[in-house]
Amino acid sequence: MTILTNPMSRALELARAAADAGEVPVGAVVVDPATGEIIGEGANAPVMAHDPTAHAEIIALRSAAAKLGNYRLTGLHLYVTLEPCAMCAGAISFARIGKLIFAASDPKGGAILHGPRFFGQQTCHWRPEVEQDEASDVEAGDLLREFFRTRRG
Amino acid sequence: MTILTNPMSRALELARAAADAGEVPVGAVVVDPATGEIIGEGANAPVMAHDPTAHAEIIALRSAAAKLGNYRLTGLHLYVTLEPCAMCAGAISFARIGKLIFAASDPKGGAILHGPRFFGQQTCHWRPEVEQDEASDVEAGDLLREFFRTRRG
Repeated sequence: MTILTNPMSRALELARAAADAGEVPVGAVVVDPATGEIIGEGANAPVMAHDPTAHAEIIALRSAAAKLGNYRLTGLHLYVTLEPCAMCAGAISFARIGKLIFAASDPKGGAILHGPRFFGQQTCHWRPEVEQDEASDVEAGDLLREFFRTRRG
Repeated sequence: MTILTNPMSRALELARAAADAGEVPVGAVVVDPATGEIIGEGANAPVMAHDPTAHAEIIALRSAAAKLGNYRLTGLHLYVTLEPCAMCAGAISFARIGKLIFAASDPKGGAILHGPRFFGQQTCHWRPEVEQDEASDVEAGDLLREFFRTRRG
């Protein structure tokens, strides 16, 4: 059983691991808020995994659901280093995540504060509490900026 | 190699198989339009698979990408018996599907004609051609209506 005082630190580690593997650096962990236990985690991996759905959040949700033997993760918390896209927002809603905590916002592809703002749609039938982790915003964003800068260079 | 003259017939078969397994009846197939070959397919399975992301479309896209060894399915067509949700619309966009053909529309949870209308969002960076298959609309919808009628009874 892995217990962390700051699950976003683990999500940032997973984001760095993604970058080391040549993937856009995003990491995510699913946590039981009652115990602090990490139930699932994921590092962004679509290119290497040959899987268009292999965002960090999807991998973390799928591994948590497999571990618990239940497609609903009711009340669990999801920490992710980047504002989720529409695909991941939909998955978070289906999984009945209790609270979403994200670090950097994503004006280009995010679906929480931007674009479809999915949790505010009438076709969204479960809305988690949402919090932006301002303390990790810069570190998560720097990882992304550094990744794209070196890819361009 | 499986070649079908009507991929929606196969998607409807997969939807019936989902219902037989106690899952909401939705089926999907990924097809190469040049050859008619089915590259991937899926039947809705979140409850049985313990996977909140296991919609028919996600399973079909993941299996096609695994088969081709590429997370991009550029130009391939996706047939699905129900209008995709936001999660699946996002995945369809990431996979670079060339054309989406769906049967029944879904005012409660759809994200193509309803709710976020994801492909029209500025945060959507790849839009497939979209077609509603009117010929299969009633059959696909009847499967869903029958499923929910018997579950209520």
